Amino acid sequence: MNGLPATVDIREVGPRDGLQAEVPVAPELRARMIGSLIDAGIRHIEMVSFVSPKAVPAMSHPEEVLAAVRRPPGVTITALVPNSRGAELALACEIDEITVTIAASAKYNERNVKMTIDESLDCIESICELSGAADTPVDAVVSCAFGSPYEGEVDLSHLFELLVKLSGAGVSAVTLADTTGMATPRVVCEVLDTARDALGDIYDHIGMHMHETRGTGMVNCFAALQRGVSRFDTSVGGLGGSPSAEQAAGNVSTEDLVALFDDLGVATGIDLSRLLVASATTEQIVGHHLPSRVAYAGPRLARS
Amino acid sequence: MNGLPATVDIREVGPRDGLQAEVPVAPELRARMIGSLIDAGIRHIEMVSFVSPKAVPAMSHPEEVLAAVRRPPGVTITALVPNSRGAELALACEIDEITVTIAASAKYNERNVKMTIDESLDCIESICELSGAADTPVDAVVSCAFGSPYEGEVDLSHLFELLVKLSGAGVSAVTLADTTGMATPRVVCEVLDTARDALGDIYDHIGMHMHETRGTGMVNCFAALQRGVSRFDTSVGGLGGSPSAEQAAGNVSTEDLVALFDDLGVATGIDLSRLLVASATTEQIVGHHLPSRVAYAGPRLARS
Repeated sequence: MNGLPATVDIREVGPRDGLQAEVPVAPELRARMIGSLIDAGIRHIEMVSFVSPKAVPAMSHPEEVLAAVRRPPGVTITALVPNSRGAELALACEIDEITVTIAASAKYNERNVKMTIDESLDCIESICELSGAADTPVDAVVSCAFGSPYEGEVDLSHLFELLVKLSGAGVSAVTLADTTGMATPRVVCEVLDTARDALGDIYDHIGMHMHETRGTGMVNCFAALQRGVSRFDTSVGGLGGSPSAEQAAGNVSTEDLVALFDDLGVATGIDLSRLLVASATTEQIVGHHLPSRVAYAGPRLARS
Repeated sequence: MNGLPATVDIREVGPRDGLQAEVPVAPELRARMIGSLIDAGIRHIEMVSFVSPKAVPAMSHPEEVLAAVRRPPGVTITALVPNSRGAELALACEIDEITVTIAASAKYNERNVKMTIDESLDCIESICELSGAADTPVDAVVSCAFGSPYEGEVDLSHLFELLVKLSGAGVSAVTLADTTGMATPRVVCEVLDTARDALGDIYDHIGMHMHETRGTGMVNCFAALQRGVSRFDTSVGGLGGSPSAEQAAGNVSTEDLVALFDDLGVATGIDLSRLLVASATTEQIVGHHLPSRVAYAGPRLARS
């Protein structure tokens, strides 16, 4: 199809956003899962988070995971950090990228991280100072960027202000997250227009982080691709929603999006058949079926 | 969003294509399910098929189902028929539309209906003669129109010939079905171009019948909508795949597509909250969870 980006950057978030909702998995198994993703050609992985192990037991021992992971050249290792202390720990592990979160919904932000949005912005500014000294980029993942279960439709003027402030706080990139599955192609277009106006140069690397909560994750990625977006967060197997496949509402599945992009001639650098191996490894590690459709049905064309 | 059709025709196929794969449900329950769909504002429903009850026990007793269904004005009652005998039986029930199937894949056609494509075309021509005398339109649903598990990619020149022959056989409409989930937006565009060239006036009412086998059902509907397609087959709850929700690969869910179209400002005439009632009724009748995401997560905005 004409007018689509020639290549895209798929950031795999399964080891962090995905496993976070699961029964805790041992660091060596998390490293094994990450290894299978690297083997599939994935070159950008959110591997760990430096949050309190009490608050999120499944994310304990990030240092052990990182120590156990092979680091072939060209792999960008991302770590989520909640505050300056987390950033110091992450930077000490020589990660390549930091992600921070902030919500476009005040209520969601308070419930999620017990801070006002301004407090979160201050926190992100401190993280950016530390990471700037280490020359490590910071990507701000904006939760509820397409609407919130509390406030409803996203307020585009509030979103604009938030994105301007984030840019001022020193982030190097912004990812728009549809945390509760409220995005549609209409909202995606409106939000991208707002982001472009607010972010200046940073907009060139805007990322999308979509969920399948209402069955529109893939549609929203396609609509964003049509608008020139070339960075996508996905999760192997669609890991990240409820552990019950019946109630599948996880991240857009890496396999499903890679299969779609392959067919559209949009290069991901990822080998789909190896990715299916990584997906099977992940299912084994978490011990239950994952919602990815391509993982179950296989590629659309049989390999010769 | 600009350039999309203002209104679309959603044909609900759950009572036929959906229930076909289920443990047989009593005619009065099938009529109750259909009633709940009519209550939701659905005005086009494939209700029954007149196939051999031995071959497809779940479709037994179509006359009883039709006799038990209320027929408010404006509801188009569709029946699938496999041959002239089926057409006679259907026409005797005063249905409003006949669907016939034929595959773009020779092997699939032979396995599915034990006929060559030419034999299927002859059969469709006979059905069209009968229905023409009764002034009842015939919609040819073309299976494997976007690729086949046997031949791989669809051969566009073969598809072109098939569509020209179908038009010559006297069908009033054509629906392109992605029987095994091989469509992508690229293939959708190529196939629609071919169909437009082959079908002449009939193309104006071209329909899409998409499956979620590889997670692209909604994307394909969106891509078709962007190309001006305004007729879609969907199934309440996404009924129609494996009865196991884990392996969900059914039809595109009516709820999910209506929710998307509502948000895009594309009128369906269907009331989403009442549709969720129909979906719950259907789950109760089939006795298991259905894969629709919106049925589980609810509408994106809470009603006031």
